[in-house]
Amino acid sequence: MDRITPVVLCGGSGTRLWPRSRAAKPKPFLPLVGEGTLFEATLARCADEARFTAPLVVTGAAHLPHVEAQLGPRGGGIIVEPTARNTAAAIALAALRLPPEAIMLVCPSDHHIADPAAFAEAALAAAGLAAQDWLVSFGIEAKTPETGFGYLKRGDAIGSGPGARVAQFVEKPDLERARAFIASGDYAWNGGIFAFRAGFFLDELARHRPEIAAGARAAVAAGRSEGAHFHPDPAAFAQIHAESVDYAVMENTDRAAMVPAAMGWSDIGNWEALHEARARDAAGNHVTGPAELIDCRHVLVDSDGPRVNVIGLENVMIVVDQGEILITSAAGAQKVGKLHGALNQ
Amino acid sequence: MDRITPVVLCGGSGTRLWPRSRAAKPKPFLPLVGEGTLFEATLARCADEARFTAPLVVTGAAHLPHVEAQLGPRGGGIIVEPTARNTAAAIALAALRLPPEAIMLVCPSDHHIADPAAFAEAALAAAGLAAQDWLVSFGIEAKTPETGFGYLKRGDAIGSGPGARVAQFVEKPDLERARAFIASGDYAWNGGIFAFRAGFFLDELARHRPEIAAGARAAVAAGRSEGAHFHPDPAAFAQIHAESVDYAVMENTDRAAMVPAAMGWSDIGNWEALHEARARDAAGNHVTGPAELIDCRHVLVDSDGPRVNVIGLENVMIVVDQGEILITSAAGAQKVGKLHGALNQ
Repeated sequence: MDRITPVVLCGGSGTRLWPRSRAAKPKPFLPLVGEGTLFEATLARCADEARFTAPLVVTGAAHLPHVEAQLGPRGGGIIVEPTARNTAAAIALAALRLPPEAIMLVCPSDHHIADPAAFAEAALAAAGLAAQDWLVSFGIEAKTPETGFGYLKRGDAIGSGPGARVAQFVEKPDLERARAFIASGDYAWNGGIFAFRAGFFLDELARHRPEIAAGARAAVAAGRSEGAHFHPDPAAFAQIHAESVDYAVMENTDRAAMVPAAMGWSDIGNWEALHEARARDAAGNHVTGPAELIDCRHVLVDSDGPRVNVIGLENVMIVVDQGEILITSAAGAQKVGKLHGALNQ
Repeated sequence: MDRITPVVLCGGSGTRLWPRSRAAKPKPFLPLVGEGTLFEATLARCADEARFTAPLVVTGAAHLPHVEAQLGPRGGGIIVEPTARNTAAAIALAALRLPPEAIMLVCPSDHHIADPAAFAEAALAAAGLAAQDWLVSFGIEAKTPETGFGYLKRGDAIGSGPGARVAQFVEKPDLERARAFIASGDYAWNGGIFAFRAGFFLDELARHRPEIAAGARAAVAAGRSEGAHFHPDPAAFAQIHAESVDYAVMENTDRAAMVPAAMGWSDIGNWEALHEARARDAAGNHVTGPAELIDCRHVLVDSDGPRVNVIGLENVMIVVDQGEILITSAAGAQKVGKLHGALNQ
């Protein structure tokens, strides 16, 4: 099999990780777990030159300086989106810039994966199916009844490998349904990681969303290259309907497949999820920066300077960043994006 | 009756109100409730010139600049203690600097009293008994079974006024005893506010603690005046045993009396008590400084600059002061003094 092309999507603002994640330096470009940033870790998972080509990054102009600073020595191509048009259009741009036979591994740049070896294994399995013209989703092992994710229902096996058809795409369920999904063992989380053959993806996009396919094709045809950067035509791209690849293609195609992925995945969707992904002591506490904790359990402290002194709290996340202090219950972590500070950046 | 002399004691560090209360500017000199500082409010309660003389303040050299800055236009005498020797010695110094017939009203400078008119009424009743050579404690109306205060058990009435003998002094009780005290209706909190005739106080001190009385007398005899300041002799004063007036005199005298005082008293002993003393909205929240609260109940925010964003918390106190952030549960508020920041000032 030819080498896989990592297609790394750098969109999204990460407002639920405010005040650390800011419009000027959002989530993918921050060292939220471990030493590197989430974007750097995404690239590092696809750094094996025997299996992966250099990456193709799709990003907006606002994030370009961060992408260039963190792309690393191996480099890669960068498609600079003139406006944000969601994932169907972003992936179409990448597919149009690659040979039809290229196997794309579409990766969000703001997730954490604790087990890169398991990721690589799932990527190889997904690429094998993509080469046979399946549109492949990673089916993330679902351990808890999350209501914030979409689910994939596993269908008939494909051949003798780990892959299977997707029997059903399920939107974010309520808690009762989510519990039933976990109990059944037939469901996985839809983590937004995909493997496609570029040409087949474009065929299926043209079948189900011909206007998106045509718009992307026009934007690329009228675009311009500038070194490793490619700039789609702004006017043509702006006319494209913004839609996720799930809605536009995956839920409509007859060729939807999934591969199982048990790899310690997290979308780091809020401060509670970030706390779960970080190292914790015996009491479940994590501290970055100066702090003193007394009688605390499952408390996160992350301060860029001021000392944080905490007494008698449980399941609370505390973040200090450039004059803003966030203190939220675990349950409240979902509402951080509604704070005035997060909205008015 | 002659006018009453307010004797205002400015000791104590208020470490449980760290990080707002610091060694360099402790609790009495901070505007913790309302506009003025607790020291200023103490003076204001005794500002009626028809009833009170100018105050006599007993303080340490470290606090002298704050006392002078906040003493106000009426002025008053200041006794500068060379070292801290607790309340028996501090009150003895004041008594020795006054005529024997002077009625002293001994007031801590770091308490909050919501109803100054009720305070004035109790002060007059106490002064009347003190003129008859009773040693009079304010018996603070006890509404909740606090375990952090000493209690006074009410004994036989004295004459036809509100005063009574103290039947018993009770050290800080456990919760079960405190509940029984509240249920009985016979007990009041010992708030550390006293009325004495100066000469009689010195007689009783000499009877029960002759070494403290003699030490204070020697320190005053060898002391020096400097304008409105009086400096007791450091060597003589340093030899005095440090003991509270409760232990040294009140628990031993046959002339202990009490007057009832229902005046919205709080010792502002920690951040939870301060929260109770401050104005709160319908959800029980109080905010000083920039803040946004979502889904919070009974939360205190007090910030000197950084914005505090709080989601989903209940019964939590948050204080930001000069690069230190304190976040404590109501129950944890008692432990603030144990934080390294509070200990290592």
